[in-house]
Amino acid sequence: MKKGIAFYKVGEAVDGFFLIKSAVRGIASNGKPFMTIHLQDQSGDVEAKLWDCSPEDEELYIPQSIVRIGGEMGNYRGKSQLKLKAIRPATELDGVKMSDFLETAPLSQDELGEAVTKYIFEMKNPNIQRLTRHLLKKHQAAFFEYPAAVKNHHEFVSGLAYHVVSMLDLAKALSKLYPSLDTDLLYSGIILHDLGKVIELSGPVAASYTLEGKLLGHISIMVNEIGQAAKELEIDGEEVTVLQHLVLSHHSKPEWGSPKAPLIREAEILHMIDNFDARMNMMDRALEKTEPGEFTEKVFALENRSMYKPSFQKEHVGK
Amino acid sequence: MKKGIAFYKVGEAVDGFFLIKSAVRGIASNGKPFMTIHLQDQSGDVEAKLWDCSPEDEELYIPQSIVRIGGEMGNYRGKSQLKLKAIRPATELDGVKMSDFLETAPLSQDELGEAVTKYIFEMKNPNIQRLTRHLLKKHQAAFFEYPAAVKNHHEFVSGLAYHVVSMLDLAKALSKLYPSLDTDLLYSGIILHDLGKVIELSGPVAASYTLEGKLLGHISIMVNEIGQAAKELEIDGEEVTVLQHLVLSHHSKPEWGSPKAPLIREAEILHMIDNFDARMNMMDRALEKTEPGEFTEKVFALENRSMYKPSFQKEHVGK
Amino acid sequence: MKKGIAFYKVGEAVDGFFLIKSAVRGIASNGKPFMTIHLQDQSGDVEAKLWDCSPEDEELYIPQSIVRIGGEMGNYRGKSQLKLKAIRPATELDGVKMSDFLETAPLSQDELGEAVTKYIFEMKNPNIQRLTRHLLKKHQAAFFEYPAAVKNHHEFVSGLAYHVVSMLDLAKALSKLYPSLDTDLLYSGIILHDLGKVIELSGPVAASYTLEGKLLGHISIMVNEIGQAAKELEIDGEEVTVLQHLVLSHHSKPEWGSPKAPLIREAEILHMIDNFDARMNMMDRALEKTEPGEFTEKVFALENRSMYKPSFQKEHVGK
Amino acid sequence: MKKGIAFYKVGEAVDGFFLIKSAVRGIASNGKPFMTIHLQDQSGDVEAKLWDCSPEDEELYIPQSIVRIGGEMGNYRGKSQLKLKAIRPATELDGVKMSDFLETAPLSQDELGEAVTKYIFEMKNPNIQRLTRHLLKKHQAAFFEYPAAVKNHHEFVSGLAYHVVSMLDLAKALSKLYPSLDTDLLYSGIILHDLGKVIELSGPVAASYTLEGKLLGHISIMVNEIGQAAKELEIDGEEVTVLQHLVLSHHSKPEWGSPKAPLIREAEILHMIDNFDARMNMMDRALEKTEPGEFTEKVFALENRSMYKPSFQKEHVGK
Amino acid sequence: MKKGIAFYKVGEAVDGFFLIKSAVRGIASNGKPFMTIHLQDQSGDVEAKLWDCSPEDEELYIPQSIVRIGGEMGNYRGKSQLKLKAIRPATELDGVKMSDFLETAPLSQDELGEAVTKYIFEMKNPNIQRLTRHLLKKHQAAFFEYPAAVKNHHEFVSGLAYHVVSMLDLAKALSKLYPSLDTDLLYSGIILHDLGKVIELSGPVAASYTLEGKLLGHISIMVNEIGQAAKELEIDGEEVTVLQHLVLSHHSKPEWGSPKAPLIREAEILHMIDNFDARMNMMDRALEKTEPGEFTEKVFALENRSMYKPSFQKEHVGK
Amino acid sequence: MKKGIAFYKVGEAVDGFFLIKSAVRGIASNGKPFMTIHLQDQSGDVEAKLWDCSPEDEELYIPQSIVRIGGEMGNYRGKSQLKLKAIRPATELDGVKMSDFLETAPLSQDELGEAVTKYIFEMKNPNIQRLTRHLLKKHQAAFFEYPAAVKNHHEFVSGLAYHVVSMLDLAKALSKLYPSLDTDLLYSGIILHDLGKVIELSGPVAASYTLEGKLLGHISIMVNEIGQAAKELEIDGEEVTVLQHLVLSHHSKPEWGSPKAPLIREAEILHMIDNFDARMNMMDRALEKTEPGEFTEKVFALENRSMYKPSFQKEHVGK
Repeated sequence: MKKGIAFYKVGEAVDGFFLIKSAVRGIASNGKPFMTIHLQDQSGDVEAKLWDCSPEDEELYIPQSIVRIGGEMGNYRGKSQLKLKAIRPATELDGVKMSDFLETAPLSQDELGEAVTKYIFEMKNPNIQRLTRHLLKKHQAAFFEYPAAVKNHHEFVSGLAYHVVSMLDLAKALSKLYPSLDTDLLYSGIILHDLGKVIELSGPVAASYTLEGKLLGHISIMVNEIGQAAKELEIDGEEVTVLQHLVLSHHSKPEWGSPKAPLIREAEILHMIDNFDARMNMMDRALEKTEPGEFTEKVFALENRSMYKPSFQKEHVGK
Repeated sequence: MKKGIAFYKVGEAVDGFFLIKSAVRGIASNGKPFMTIHLQDQSGDVEAKLWDCSPEDEELYIPQSIVRIGGEMGNYRGKSQLKLKAIRPATELDGVKMSDFLETAPLSQDELGEAVTKYIFEMKNPNIQRLTRHLLKKHQAAFFEYPAAVKNHHEFVSGLAYHVVSMLDLAKALSKLYPSLDTDLLYSGIILHDLGKVIELSGPVAASYTLEGKLLGHISIMVNEIGQAAKELEIDGEEVTVLQHLVLSHHSKPEWGSPKAPLIREAEILHMIDNFDARMNMMDRALEKTEPGEFTEKVFALENRSMYKPSFQKEHVGK
Repeated sequence: MKKGIAFYKVGEAVDGFFLIKSAVRGIASNGKPFMTIHLQDQSGDVEAKLWDCSPEDEELYIPQSIVRIGGEMGNYRGKSQLKLKAIRPATELDGVKMSDFLETAPLSQDELGEAVTKYIFEMKNPNIQRLTRHLLKKHQAAFFEYPAAVKNHHEFVSGLAYHVVSMLDLAKALSKLYPSLDTDLLYSGIILHDLGKVIELSGPVAASYTLEGKLLGHISIMVNEIGQAAKELEIDGEEVTVLQHLVLSHHSKPEWGSPKAPLIREAEILHMIDNFDARMNMMDRALEKTEPGEFTEKVFALENRSMYKPSFQKEHVGK
Repeated sequence: MKKGIAFYKVGEAVDGFFLIKSAVRGIASNGKPFMTIHLQDQSGDVEAKLWDCSPEDEELYIPQSIVRIGGEMGNYRGKSQLKLKAIRPATELDGVKMSDFLETAPLSQDELGEAVTKYIFEMKNPNIQRLTRHLLKKHQAAFFEYPAAVKNHHEFVSGLAYHVVSMLDLAKALSKLYPSLDTDLLYSGIILHDLGKVIELSGPVAASYTLEGKLLGHISIMVNEIGQAAKELEIDGEEVTVLQHLVLSHHSKPEWGSPKAPLIREAEILHMIDNFDARMNMMDRALEKTEPGEFTEKVFALENRSMYKPSFQKEHVGK
Repeated sequence: MKKGIAFYKVGEAVDGFFLIKSAVRGIASNGKPFMTIHLQDQSGDVEAKLWDCSPEDEELYIPQSIVRIGGEMGNYRGKSQLKLKAIRPATELDGVKMSDFLETAPLSQDELGEAVTKYIFEMKNPNIQRLTRHLLKKHQAAFFEYPAAVKNHHEFVSGLAYHVVSMLDLAKALSKLYPSLDTDLLYSGIILHDLGKVIELSGPVAASYTLEGKLLGHISIMVNEIGQAAKELEIDGEEVTVLQHLVLSHHSKPEWGSPKAPLIREAEILHMIDNFDARMNMMDRALEKTEPGEFTEKVFALENRSMYKPSFQKEHVGK
Repeated sequence: MKKGIAFYKVGEAVDGFFLIKSAVRGIASNGKPFMTIHLQDQSGDVEAKLWDCSPEDEELYIPQSIVRIGGEMGNYRGKSQLKLKAIRPATELDGVKMSDFLETAPLSQDELGEAVTKYIFEMKNPNIQRLTRHLLKKHQAAFFEYPAAVKNHHEFVSGLAYHVVSMLDLAKALSKLYPSLDTDLLYSGIILHDLGKVIELSGPVAASYTLEGKLLGHISIMVNEIGQAAKELEIDGEEVTVLQHLVLSHHSKPEWGSPKAPLIREAEILHMIDNFDARMNMMDRALEKTEPGEFTEKVFALENRSMYKPSFQKEHVGK
């Protein structure tokens, strides 16, 4: 199998097909135009510079097109940077397609769908179950395609649903150790907590923020959605307000985007599970590329820390 | 006219009828029960202590009942405290009623209603006008009765509507000086910004927080209400999201309760007008009771400052 | 079975034996001495006031003595306060002993010991296993007796060991869902992270801080202990520094007492597990005493929040 | 009329005369010298790069000289940047002069002077009136020429006086709605609050900070000036201290440069009016260049926000 | 020699003359008036309660009168509190006078005056010397009488001058180790830095804040004084602005009261010397009353810490 | 004597030998490789760019090699930057050696050693003396070679020992003015406070952080070292814990790296002396290169301030 772009070392030659994730034109300090291109395959992405680019180049090399490149891996200010020696657009004859280059969740959309359905089926409170099912159905297609975030963690196709399923499995394990937990409420909160992202973001790939996303944010959007779903389903039990509260408070603090702190046990737990799964995902992705006895790149969403992989963790431990 | 309770000085005798605003039982350090009673008339309220109270006292002197008392104004840790010498419940023969004791806005509910109606009538954007009219109508009765806040500013009957009308007048004056302002948007934002308080609070007098108030807060409540009104009126222009944003951002910062900062000129102005009118109200109330050359009591919501009244402001200036 | 002191309501008569947890003398505002006594049984503790106390009272009613009291539950500033009507020291004839009044972990010291031993047995890295076993053995007696904290969470006999076992079970469940975790490191970090408390605190019951506790704190104390254990066992692999780092960083932030943030995956996870188990414990204890549809008392270590128990959680859910 | 430099779009050709606002020499990454020049006309300014510049260029193209340039508007990291193709100094024959290029207040110096005079004339307190008139007269020439700030808001010729007049008009409107305001004090505070800038800054155009500006700042400078004026005019009423306090506290918080918070009603209002007028000015300038349905550039002094212009604000509303 | 009030232990009988430092009337929780009196001798002061006081008591026992009392030292919430058993006003026959009770600096006013004069004499820069001499002369009487602060450090008669002389001696010692220091500037800055307190505070004993103190603060007051002195002496060298800057910046940070941070070496050193001497003074006063092996009372201005006196510091070390 | 590299002005020609302090390869915006080289002599260092460098260049010009260069001093973004015109490696014939280029303390290692020995000799407490002597001896070689910090202050050969000796002299001067100070404790704390840096850093020149440095930090390392020294010397008096506390708390606040604030007088003084000497060193180094009437470069560790050198400080004052 081909080596992923995320795993090349400085000095290694690179030759292959990649998807252009983003392409921005600049003017170099010698006055000539150049392009900053992010090239992507299923392992991640890397920055490359195309110097002295022509107007044709700017038209050819646009986001979401596929290119073949030759070059050498370099390093600029501590981050990998590919030195391009050759570049051309892919043609039909090359037999490559966009989905070959998209990183995707370890589980298929079908598997994810099945898992979520199973958890909804386990719910005993009819109000919670109906609200959850109704909202999931309404946004189903997007829910199983969107990433969990524009960057930082679970930033891949189906990342949102994969993150939700990991959290559900974690919630189930916790509820065995801490039997006081109300799993109906917790499962529903997990499924709904980030569902507003399908309205906040423009699409599953190369997403930007919509006007509603910028002016209201995915938390307020989802709180509204729950209110309207309750109206349509004619549900007016306390479950409606409580579920709205779980979504509203899941960032835990005003300065992190939640106007109310969690005031219900399952709201507090939802926040901690969300945080736990996101941090595990980020640490694993960074450590995967790191040798024992070395530090990872700085990870912005881990308070910009470099994590250390102990030299006695020679092999993937625990497996 | 009778002197209001807020204006007595230490050592003065007090004799008259008052409304009990709150009554809390305690155990004194000698082991005997006592009651801490807040007595209120239209000028404000004062704390009083009823020592060695009997079980009958506790049944008689409850919130929202009227009493006749005799006593002397004292001072405890820098705040006025009434020393009770005699107390009895009011009887029918006394000819007093609750509304005699409630502080109320300087304008009647009719005048306030007329003023708000006039501003809605001035709106030219039909979407904004219909949404505003619909929501005001839905919560009309409460809107003209509620206080603007549980404490701090405009804490009196019709305080919310009076605060809104002051803000509308201020917005009108500003729009003459700064003609770029969109008055439709601004007037609507002013009318709606705190309307969620009629759901957040339990009632117009002696209000506490409802469950929705505690779990969601008046801002999220109103954002939802706008969304549902738009659905009922079948309006889906950008006005809906923009009005939701004005309400959502009117506290300006996450740590003050707004998950989004104002991103629209009229949202920023709404925040400043709200702040301006509240601060004027608090300063005027504190300075009214203060002699020239003296400092006011500490005002909590003015960052706990004591304001100074210059000695050359001998008479009410500006009038 | 007798009702615990934590579950009495205002107005109920109280009659029974209790352990004096603390007793402080004061001067009442009438100039007479009184005592503030905390009375404890296995359900928790309550404050009581003994007014006009004599010098004999002060000698009789000292911490860790047992008394029989009669009185009535009251309330002072929102916290329960027992109104004493009668008090006398317990005598031999009463047939009560101190351990009848101490809250204790749900598992016996034997069960806790067995559980910890099992996890140490599972470790494969010999350096980690030897260090952990050595340090646990050195402080064994105290480890199985001490509370996890002076207040806030797991504040009961064997609280420290019980908290550790809960965390170990949680770590095991997590390592099944996240197989990249190094369980040797994580189990060892969990067992050692708070072991310094047996030097920081004066004893298992009614603990205060020792001089070392005040000048160095349990984190620095334990980092030292690991260093000395390594010297004695002649271990000098990277495991020593890494384990010291896990202990050093387990409060996560400088302002919370950790001079280094977690820089190893298992250090980050250790912090989150510690936090998770402590918060579950505090929430469960507060919610246990609360009816559905009500809010708990304010819980200081949960950022002073009152948690809400939804009214639809009628019975202990999830069981 | 010629299109202003602030309104060109990327790709448009630019040809015309401009004033050089600043010119800084650098060494490009190819080792050759270049100049970063800010070109200005009455609409604003834009950055341009002159690559491979000669020593002659460095002597010719200096701040406050006029040049004719040809080029194309580009964009570098989200800000406009002019790509120079031709540049030459203006000659006498070109018939252009510096004042053609300076942005200036919408009112003439005469109009501004008249407005300020009118407000001073309205003052009834003789101490306040004499102090204000004396200080204004002392710094008159500079007051009517200086900008209100080096950047951010009212950054144009006569910007300081224009900002003051806007604030005075606003104060007058407010005093009609809030009649308790002492307009003498408020008008004087407004006129004096930033007058220290004529000592803090080096001049009306291309201003830098003087030594007094750096070591003392305009607030302390003006507090001193008021003290000395009072001495010269032999005024020693409380008005002196109160006016000094208004100037001292007008930034409201220590961390914003005011060692004392406002302790007088008019001091608090002065702070709010200052803030209000500055924010309106910044928002209007940013929104003027923005199409409906678009966001503005980030505005640093508005907490780095991009403001949104709703798409339903098709025309300049409110006019 | 008589034992000072600061050194009594709980339970000891107290009998002697004291100065009343403050006396505040309160209402006890049994409804009766009482007085909280602070009694002072040269060693410090202690709180005492006079229960059930009569109107005559309130007239007799006023601040700055001398009384004879009998009582017993007690403790209330961790602070000493004297239990009064007998109290009477001192009479002429008692032969006691106020100065017997005032804590005072270890050096006489003459010694302090001589020391300051010596440092002024050492200055070589004539501008600095003349400004310093002029300002010191203007406020001479108060300078040698005032305390350095209302509380916290050097809170005794001549405390300000004593603090200044300690700082001057420290500056001299430092300038020998760090010869780059400009002693003229540093000595002058030390002498002037807190001189504004003689205007900020109402008097040398039992001081409160004047109106100028509250509205401007001692820093702005002194910056003004330097400006006016320069005018009177017709000095306009850079020394004026630099000295104003030293005073303005000596609290180092805006949030501590200095609108400008120190930008001159001697300004930075002035801040550090001020801080050093104040902290030494506070630590010495707290440790003086503490036995080896014990912690001091909490000291508010030392970030509320309790300092520990090591048990091996058996005797006053270093002497 | 040759002029040091730190003192060249823009435009001056530079010709001479220098030590390469660091050399980093980059890719210029024209796609060609270049090197960023820091050249050092005893006066300081300067950045230089070697454009279009060959692979041979990259092998030749490595850290800690000596080169001869010709070029011209330039300026890039306000910092000096040397424009290289010629560069070649030094040969044996050039007769230059590394120590010619290293900035070094003003005192020799012998002088420093003697000074420290003298202070240890003065100690009277045998526990403190033995612990200090033992630890100093253990790390002696490194202690007299290492810099005090990687950057900011005393960043030169023997910088650590020189900083310690300056602090000891300062402590001695202070103890004469403040005789309550325990000089044994203070001297020992000064000698040990940063000794952990010899384990935290990789070496005396061009130091980086070791694994222990990154995971534990020099404070925890040294606290451990003291504990182990006490064990080896069989000392268990309170001195051990107290000395550990002095080291642990010498950064004063958790957010600056000290988990415990100073709780002992000498710990507080140690922190202030450390701060004082470091700040004097940084200010002197920056002001040395600055003309009277000018501001220094921004100094990062002085809160990024530019310090001003008054124009009346024409010559090195105080000498």
